[in-house]
Amino acid sequence: MFLTRTEYDRGVNTFSPEGRLFQVEYAIEAIKLGSTAIGIKTKEGVVLAVEKRITSPLLVPSSVEKIMEIDEHIGCAMSGLIADARTLVEHARVETQNHRFSYGEPMTVESTTQALCDLALRFGEGDEESMSRPFGVSLLIAGHDENGPSLYYTDPSGTFWQCNAKAIGSGSEGADSSLQEQFNKDLTLKEAETIALSILKQVMEEKVTPNNVDIAKVSPTYHLYTPSEVESVISRL
Amino acid sequence: MFLTRTEYDRGVNTFSPEGRLFQVEYAIEAIKLGSTAIGIKTKEGVVLAVEKRITSPLLVPSSVEKIMEIDEHIGCAMSGLIADARTLVEHARVETQNHRFSYGEPMTVESTTQALCDLALRFGEGDEESMSRPFGVSLLIAGHDENGPSLYYTDPSGTFWQCNAKAIGSGSEGADSSLQEQFNKDLTLKEAETIALSILKQVMEEKVTPNNVDIAKVSPTYHLYTPSEVESVISRL
Amino acid sequence: MFLTRTEYDRGVNTFSPEGRLFQVEYAIEAIKLGSTAIGIKTKEGVVLAVEKRITSPLLVPSSVEKIMEIDEHIGCAMSGLIADARTLVEHARVETQNHRFSYGEPMTVESTTQALCDLALRFGEGDEESMSRPFGVSLLIAGHDENGPSLYYTDPSGTFWQCNAKAIGSGSEGADSSLQEQFNKDLTLKEAETIALSILKQVMEEKVTPNNVDIAKVSPTYHLYTPSEVESVISRL
Amino acid sequence: MFLTRTEYDRGVNTFSPEGRLFQVEYAIEAIKLGSTAIGIKTKEGVVLAVEKRITSPLLVPSSVEKIMEIDEHIGCAMSGLIADARTLVEHARVETQNHRFSYGEPMTVESTTQALCDLALRFGEGDEESMSRPFGVSLLIAGHDENGPSLYYTDPSGTFWQCNAKAIGSGSEGADSSLQEQFNKDLTLKEAETIALSILKQVMEEKVTPNNVDIAKVSPTYHLYTPSEVESVISRL
Amino acid sequence: MFLTRTEYDRGVNTFSPEGRLFQVEYAIEAIKLGSTAIGIKTKEGVVLAVEKRITSPLLVPSSVEKIMEIDEHIGCAMSGLIADARTLVEHARVETQNHRFSYGEPMTVESTTQALCDLALRFGEGDEESMSRPFGVSLLIAGHDENGPSLYYTDPSGTFWQCNAKAIGSGSEGADSSLQEQFNKDLTLKEAETIALSILKQVMEEKVTPNNVDIAKVSPTYHLYTPSEVESVISRL
Amino acid sequence: MFLTRTEYDRGVNTFSPEGRLFQVEYAIEAIKLGSTAIGIKTKEGVVLAVEKRITSPLLVPSSVEKIMEIDEHIGCAMSGLIADARTLVEHARVETQNHRFSYGEPMTVESTTQALCDLALRFGEGDEESMSRPFGVSLLIAGHDENGPSLYYTDPSGTFWQCNAKAIGSGSEGADSSLQEQFNKDLTLKEAETIALSILKQVMEEKVTPNNVDIAKVSPTYHLYTPSEVESVISRL
Amino acid sequence: MFLTRTEYDRGVNTFSPEGRLFQVEYAIEAIKLGSTAIGIKTKEGVVLAVEKRITSPLLVPSSVEKIMEIDEHIGCAMSGLIADARTLVEHARVETQNHRFSYGEPMTVESTTQALCDLALRFGEGDEESMSRPFGVSLLIAGHDENGPSLYYTDPSGTFWQCNAKAIGSGSEGADSSLQEQFNKDLTLKEAETIALSILKQVMEEKVTPNNVDIAKVSPTYHLYTPSEVESVISRL
Repeated sequence: MFLTRTEYDRGVNTFSPEGRLFQVEYAIEAIKLGSTAIGIKTKEGVVLAVEKRITSPLLVPSSVEKIMEIDEHIGCAMSGLIADARTLVEHARVETQNHRFSYGEPMTVESTTQALCDLALRFGEGDEESMSRPFGVSLLIAGHDENGPSLYYTDPSGTFWQCNAKAIGSGSEGADSSLQEQFNKDLTLKEAETIALSILKQVMEEKVTPNNVDIAKVSPTYHLYTPSEVESVISRL
Repeated sequence: MFLTRTEYDRGVNTFSPEGRLFQVEYAIEAIKLGSTAIGIKTKEGVVLAVEKRITSPLLVPSSVEKIMEIDEHIGCAMSGLIADARTLVEHARVETQNHRFSYGEPMTVESTTQALCDLALRFGEGDEESMSRPFGVSLLIAGHDENGPSLYYTDPSGTFWQCNAKAIGSGSEGADSSLQEQFNKDLTLKEAETIALSILKQVMEEKVTPNNVDIAKVSPTYHLYTPSEVESVISRL
Repeated sequence: MFLTRTEYDRGVNTFSPEGRLFQVEYAIEAIKLGSTAIGIKTKEGVVLAVEKRITSPLLVPSSVEKIMEIDEHIGCAMSGLIADARTLVEHARVETQNHRFSYGEPMTVESTTQALCDLALRFGEGDEESMSRPFGVSLLIAGHDENGPSLYYTDPSGTFWQCNAKAIGSGSEGADSSLQEQFNKDLTLKEAETIALSILKQVMEEKVTPNNVDIAKVSPTYHLYTPSEVESVISRL
Repeated sequence: MFLTRTEYDRGVNTFSPEGRLFQVEYAIEAIKLGSTAIGIKTKEGVVLAVEKRITSPLLVPSSVEKIMEIDEHIGCAMSGLIADARTLVEHARVETQNHRFSYGEPMTVESTTQALCDLALRFGEGDEESMSRPFGVSLLIAGHDENGPSLYYTDPSGTFWQCNAKAIGSGSEGADSSLQEQFNKDLTLKEAETIALSILKQVMEEKVTPNNVDIAKVSPTYHLYTPSEVESVISRL
Repeated sequence: MFLTRTEYDRGVNTFSPEGRLFQVEYAIEAIKLGSTAIGIKTKEGVVLAVEKRITSPLLVPSSVEKIMEIDEHIGCAMSGLIADARTLVEHARVETQNHRFSYGEPMTVESTTQALCDLALRFGEGDEESMSRPFGVSLLIAGHDENGPSLYYTDPSGTFWQCNAKAIGSGSEGADSSLQEQFNKDLTLKEAETIALSILKQVMEEKVTPNNVDIAKVSPTYHLYTPSEVESVISRL
Repeated sequence: MFLTRTEYDRGVNTFSPEGRLFQVEYAIEAIKLGSTAIGIKTKEGVVLAVEKRITSPLLVPSSVEKIMEIDEHIGCAMSGLIADARTLVEHARVETQNHRFSYGEPMTVESTTQALCDLALRFGEGDEESMSRPFGVSLLIAGHDENGPSLYYTDPSGTFWQCNAKAIGSGSEGADSSLQEQFNKDLTLKEAETIALSILKQVMEEKVTPNNVDIAKVSPTYHLYTPSEVESVISRL
Repeated sequence: MFLTRTEYDRGVNTFSPEGRLFQVEYAIEAIKLGSTAIGIKTKEGVVLAVEKRITSPLLVPSSVEKIMEIDEHIGCAMSGLIADARTLVEHARVETQNHRFSYGEPMTVESTTQALCDLALRFGEGDEESMSRPFGVSLLIAGHDENGPSLYYTDPSGTFWQCNAKAIGSGSEGADSSLQEQFNKDLTLKEAETIALSILKQVMEEKVTPNNVDIAKVSPTYHLYTPSEVESVISRL
């Protein structure tokens, strides 16, 4: 029974008798092993907060990047395989720059998300740019465009949804419950910072410090918090 | 016995000893897991109605698109893998625009459906545009052309049929029975709206709200109902 | 034993130890699941009659096409996978139009049949136009050229035969016996219509109506019967 | 044990531990299922005779072609998969026409046979013209060139031999014995006709008629016998 | 259970049901078999020290290269498959030279590391430059650029981290513990040399000599120690 | 145990745990099934003699070619798959003609042999000219060039050796022993003819006649013996 | 357990769970089956000595080449599959000639060795020049360049080491022990000849003669010893 399941793994892009795509489901498992990331949309902008697993005191914390800038009006937090995320982010950076060059205006957040998902969907197709397996990463994409602030969530199947708040990674289940309780549409950006970090604190096994979390906002441009800015959010908990 | 069936899965485009194509049948299973969609053709135009599964209160309902415009005279509702449907719809959009550009007139609904199915049929052929597996999605294509309103139903095998009314997705069996009872050729568009939504209501596990259903019509152009228009249909139930 | 048979399925174009090509034989099984089609050649022309399975009263019967025109002097009836048949018919339509354009005269029925079978034979060869599996369809090709009326029968192996009368599909066995009893070379076209429909009636599970059968003739040009013409043949039974 | 044999089938062009190529041997089995064909060389020319299996009285006998012309001085009889034979014959026809065009003289029978076998040998090599499996057909090639009449026999491995007389197909074993007894170098063409047909008669399950056998000769040009010419040979038995 | 694991190995770039990429994990095992290498960053520069396994007294020690120069401001130590490391280093040398040529300035250490990891990540993708399997090697990349000295650690998955100190190879577990105890940010380069070699001495099975260890520093340019320079560090232990 | 061996067959060019290449060894088995061929080098030239298996009295003996001319100064005898040998000989003929054309002198026997083996070695590499499996044939290449007469022996691995005398095929074991006893460097060509044929006689199951053996010599040019020349050698036994 | 090992063989370039590359290890087994070769470096130059297995007295000993010239200043001895070695040597010959042509000076011994290993490493990558499996051969590369004499040893993984003395092939284990005992840096070339041959004598099963060993030196140019030169070394034992 377990054996028959393994049969489907060889064809990475094959339906099971129940109509499932196992490689995509297994990639989603990879994300459940990842560190937790949280995004919250407010009227003033979007907040992203991530846990950074510093496995050794000799690691340089700032080199563990789990939040990255895509364009000056878009950033993203990630959970899963970091090297895969880098490929997607690099792809999105090229797309947004091309768009600015061709049209003289920033790419919308939805179009940027769609471009990322188009690449993710075509795994196993043997294309120049696509991977031979699903990308083992989920992204929280925070941005600000003519429609105001927005937050998107993508998964390895190439599907995306717009959210008001969302958690991904190993602590996502508990964090999502907390978000549903605490989120409301009238949150200020400052309140969202506090909520995101307090929820992250619950799901992390260690004490929260500027070394093991990162926070960023898009309001209306991307900004990654300095250690002292993170420290000041921590002090509010 | 179950094992021998799995043998065929590896060759995605291979007949079984009984003359069946399992990957296509498994893809059809994927659709049975999907949300329910309903289409009804009337003399005044075609109505499409879909269930939207809002898995979290933090999701932005309008970002869950299950009804999409193909051209100004054609729209479609979908059930199954959303990312696959997007690829098909994008393909159809290019085809209809090319047709307008080349011939100075809109593409007929049947030709548009045929173009979609040609792409769906060639899965596993290693073509530039085709997928390495069947598209895991069914579409209800509603349109209006020189032959008046029409409604087409496509499945993952690349086959299509013209229908007067049709339901797809997890609730399709019960919904199809109800449609057969309630459909007649003299329905007004307004009556069709009411029937579509009342049937959807039966198969959905939650209360119907403007957040968890979408309605659209083609009469003679595509129009996606606003929340208040949906609300007004709900109020007639 | 059954297992060893499945081993051959993976190589779609591989001989079994007994010298058989299983994928072709399995494709032939697909046709045995198909609806029944009958062709009868007379001196006045060829008659084609097919059963249409209308699985739901909401389907538009005329959209279930089991008889198609290839050129004005050639038509064909099909049994098996409809989407596959469409590909073959489309190929034949291009071939006959090219022939008219290049030589200023219609393509003969045998050359048209040969062109179809050349495409069918090359499955699994990785060609631009060919399929990665056998075409799961049989055709009855009716035509009229300088040699008078003729009727050809093709199978998934790319082989074809000329016949005086032939039945294909799920009811072909009984229908072929009846054809052998009732066929003679002096039949009129009208008598052939009656025989074809009466045999179809025997193998169908439902009452014959203009909705669930199609009739066409080539004498000397292709003509698909209107519902009232079908009705008039039914009334003669 | 049977299983290990099936292991080799997947690699169509792979040696077994005993140094055998199973796909070629299985293709030879396909020929043992075929109808019987006989060739006899005389000083006056070469005679070919074949059994035609008319599986239904509604088949048009002349459309079951088991003897085909390659060039005006070469013909061939076949046993095995007819669609495969057509591909080989078509290839040979192009080769002989090209030769006439390039050199202004007919291609020799041996060169024509070699050209056919070169194509047959390269199965599984992924060439433009070659098949992904062995050709499942044997040919008896009869011709007449500057060296007088000659008869060649080809098998699916791409090997050929020159023979004085040869039988292929399901009845070849018995027929070959009879040929060895009755053949001598001084036979007239007329005697060879009689011998070929009398041997064919022994291995056929039905009465010999102009409908179920074909006879052709190359002396020095190819001629397929008319039904009445066949009748006259039958009457001599 | 062990068997099912082996199933995944065939598809080198396939997720397991737990979301793991086994080929990457197995490549990491290859590194655990390798010789130990240590890197320590100080304010004055970075020190690299490696064990050289001299399996025979007849080997020329200087030909066993485990520390290599990438550019004049970057060097790297390696553990795992040496031939794989050479390919990565050669790739990085070309990248850094191209960068100097195009921009007239040295490539940063992070960009060089990223370029190496981009190549490592794309294993199994069939690219011109990439491998069909993961690179079976880890690198410690020491460099000095406009941001001062830095030390990066890469693994076969194409992921990299910046470290203050790091050990790789068969003795890495014990060595990493010692590094955590002994490292502090105020170490001089000379102290770092002593610490690196004393830790290496603990994990090696033989007496440390200039023949079986190599030491290099980047401060601010790459320099591989001569045997007498190594001897002088040994004498300080 | 037998099963594990079959595992290697699928990868035609894969080492076994013992460092063996099974497909090459299996191809060598194919040669052990072949007819026997013998070559003897003398100071006056080289003699080749082969057994021809005439499986039916109706075969034309001269059409069973087991000795072929490569160039006017080189000939070869073969054992194994005849169609494979033809491909190699055809390749060598083109090489030697190209050499004459480019350099105005005959190709040496060793270079010709090397060219044959280069093609044989590259099986399974997907090259334009190479086969997807080893060539199932061994050759004895007899030639005469500026270094005098020489005899080479090639096997399916693409390896070759120069010999004074050598036997290949099903009777090679016994024949090689006899050759070692009877060969000396002072043999005349006539003595070599007698020895070759007398040894062939021992390993053949039938009486030796001009029909079932072929003899050729290169001294200094290639000459295939006429039946009467063969008869005269037979008479000397 | 043995079965799981065989699983890895199919993917020729795949890691095992222990981080091993089995195809490379199996290729190394192929070398353990090969004849023994020995190299010794002295200040005056490098000596190579190999065992030649003359399996039949009818083989021409000089045609069994186990030592080959690469360029006038580089030669190599080999153990393993001779046809593979020829491909590597031919590649190296082209590289060294290209180098002379491009730079007007001989290629260094290390660069030549690196070029050979680059080709060996890329097996299984589908490149134009590379093999689909590891090269089943080890080489001892002896040369003389601006750095004086040097001796390199390569294995099938594409790794190389510089040595003072080294033995490869079936007798390498015993031979290496003897070399460690007898080697010192002050050996004369003449002493090295004697040591190499005396060690070879120990591991060979037959009496050493000029027929079954070859000796060559590079000092400073490549020279293969004549039979009488070999005889004179033998006489010194």
